Order: sequence, then C-alpha cells, then structure tokens
Amino acid sequence: MARDVAPLEELIEQFERLPGIGHKSAQKLAFYVLNMPEDKLKKFADTLLNSQKLIHRCSVCCDLTDREICSVCSDTKRDPSLICVVENPKDVTAIERTHEYRGTYHVLHGAISPMNGIGPDNITIKELLKRLGDKNVSEIIMATNPTVEGEATAMYISRLIKPFNIKVSRLAYGVPVGADLEYADEVTLAKAIEGRQTM
Amino acid sequence: MARDVAPLEELIEQFERLPGIGHKSAQKLAFYVLNMPEDKLKKFADTLLNSQKLIHRCSVCCDLTDREICSVCSDTKRDPSLICVVENPKDVTAIERTHEYRGTYHVLHGAISPMNGIGPDNITIKELLKRLGDKNVSEIIMATNPTVEGEATAMYISRLIKPFNIKVSRLAYGVPVGADLEYADEVTLAKAIEGRQTM
Repeated sequence: MARDVAPLEELIEQFERLPGIGHKSAQKLAFYVLNMPEDKLKKFADTLLNSQKLIHRCSVCCDLTDREICSVCSDTKRDPSLICVVENPKDVTAIERTHEYRGTYHVLHGAISPMNGIGPDNITIKELLKRLGDKNVSEIIMATNPTVEGEATAMYISRLIKPFNIKVSRLAYGVPVGADLEYADEVTLAKAIEGRQTM
Repeated sequence: MARDVAPLEELIEQFERLPGIGHKSAQKLAFYVLNMPEDKLKKFADTLLNSQKLIHRCSVCCDLTDREICSVCSDTKRDPSLICVVENPKDVTAIERTHEYRGTYHVLHGAISPMNGIGPDNITIKELLKRLGDKNVSEIIMATNPTVEGEATAMYISRLIKPFNIKVSRLAYGVPVGADLEYADEVTLAKAIEGRQTM
C-alpha cells in the first residue's frame, strides 16, 4: 500500500492478532479507536494493561478472581466437600447461572490435548490433587466438555483420584431440554437412552 | 453473577463497547488478553494509547498520516491538479490498490447525513474549498460512496465548486449501487475511475 500510515497499520495489525478478528474488522476497530474520546481510549488501554495485574487465579480453585480466594471458595454457605471440575472460567459462569449447584469448583484452564501439545502438566491437575490431600472431599463432579479432549481429561483425572477413594461423577448426557428429538445426533440419543431415569 | 471478578467484567465490557463485538466475543477476547504474554499486552495497550497522538489528518488532504503532509500529497509524481474526493481513509486505500489513479485525494471523513445529524460543517468540505482557492486544480473526481448520503454529498459539493469553474466528475457506476466503496474490487474501481462522467 502506497501510504505511510505505519502506526495505523500497526494498530490494525494489533487488532488482527486477536482471535476471530479478520482484516476488515481490524480496520473497522482501528478507525473506531482513532475516533474514540481520548479519555475513553485511555480507560480502555488502562483496563487492558491492568487486567493481568488485577485478575489472577484463586489460590484454591484456580478460577479467575481479583481476590486471594474467590467469592465461591470463600463463601461459607457453599459445600467445600463437593468439587465440580470444569475446563474454563466461562463454564463456572454457566453453572452458576443455574443457581442449582451449591458446591465449589476447580478450573483446569484447558483440557488434555496431545494434538495441541497440552499435557496433564499444562492444566491445573496437581492443584486439584493437592486439594484432595488437604481437605476431606466427598465427591468430584467431572464437568469437562463432552468432547474427545474433555472426556479424555475426565477419564485421566478420575484414574488419578481412584486412590483417594472419593466418589467421582460425570455430568449426565442426554437430549437438551426444549430441543427437538429429531435433531438430536445419534450419539447423544444413544447416551440419553443408556442413562434413562425411572419416572 | 455470583462471582467477584469486577475487573474481568470491566475488561469484557470494554471489548463489548467496540463495534461488532457481542458479549460472547468480548468474553473470548477478554480471556485471550488475560493469557497474552505481558510484553505483547503492553505493546497492544501502548499502540492503542499512542494511536491518536501518532495518527492525525494530513494538513492538505485530511487523510490519516503520521507526517505533517501524507505520502500521496508529498509525492511529486502525483498530479496535484487532480483531486479525488472520498468519504473515508479506507476509500483511499481501496483506490490506491487499483494502481490506476495518479492524482491526489481529499478525505471528507464522512458524508452529509441529516438523519445522523451530520451536516456540511461536520465533514472537511471547507478544507477542500480552501485547496481550490490556493492551488490551480483542473478536476475534482467525486468518489463518495454510491449511496443516498454519498450522492447527496457529491451533489452538494459539486454545486459549491461551480463558481471555481473546475471540471467536476463522478465515479462511473461501475461500482454496484448501495454497496460500500471499500468492498469494491480493484477492477471495478479502476473501471469506475476510467469511465468517470462530467457532472
């Protein structure tokens, strides 16, 4: 391009590096930023800069928090003997939305995926085992994603937990509530039949 | 949400304020930023902060540049008697891609749109008229978007230019009506410049 807007190119590139942002979107974002009120832009940049300092992992469950121990782990009304193991902080948010679960969590920050070079040491498995050592935990609920990686991770962890003689459960598979049976894939349907409950 | 990640919420909100970024994307971006190498994050934030200081309008054509006068205006091989009037810097990039045009530009930074409260004084029309006063300009090519606003703006400006007795031409309708100039392919744009009509 015959133009000398190196800093503009730099700005666009920076946006293009973000996940799910193509060149056109990056351009749009760059021009938007250039027209932002200066104070708002400063606020945005500061938020980005401080995010990593302010937001870190809970020393107990590894969920993201700005305190030493997150609100769930420090909530005396939650049952610490029940640990729900999820892949990402987003999953904690999803489960909290149900207002059904009163136990605590453990965030793995990923799933074992040799294809992507993610091994057991790259996720917070040892932090989980450490918790089992200290506290008297009664049950671990495996809530990793129902994907190949999620399954493998759940299996791997459950084997590691065996020696602790702690009950390990897995989220039930089945047809999503409100969904149309004819659109459910055969694997899900088979699982739903397999795990049928007496009425 | 029962969680105390106020700074995280803040980070997500900041992304959500950007155009075309929904809550899910904002969440994705926020978690991505939290896992970014610290130096890369700092670079990103600095680029954002400095963008407005480094990138400003060319004192001649109002295009975005980091110099006093942009590369096109300061290029002696370009014909300063030919001015192509566009709505946005993106349009300059699009026309430069055709490698057909050897004149200069004038970036309006918008189009007249009473619906959105954008009047003639909100875009760089007087800067354009000032150029006509100083320099001996032979032709103005109206390359505003082929939209209602773009047309209206072209008409409005061409009327203002009448007294200067300067040839005013309009991009030929090689560009599909209703579309956005930045999305037009090079060939179509080149044809449009080639077949421009006197207004």
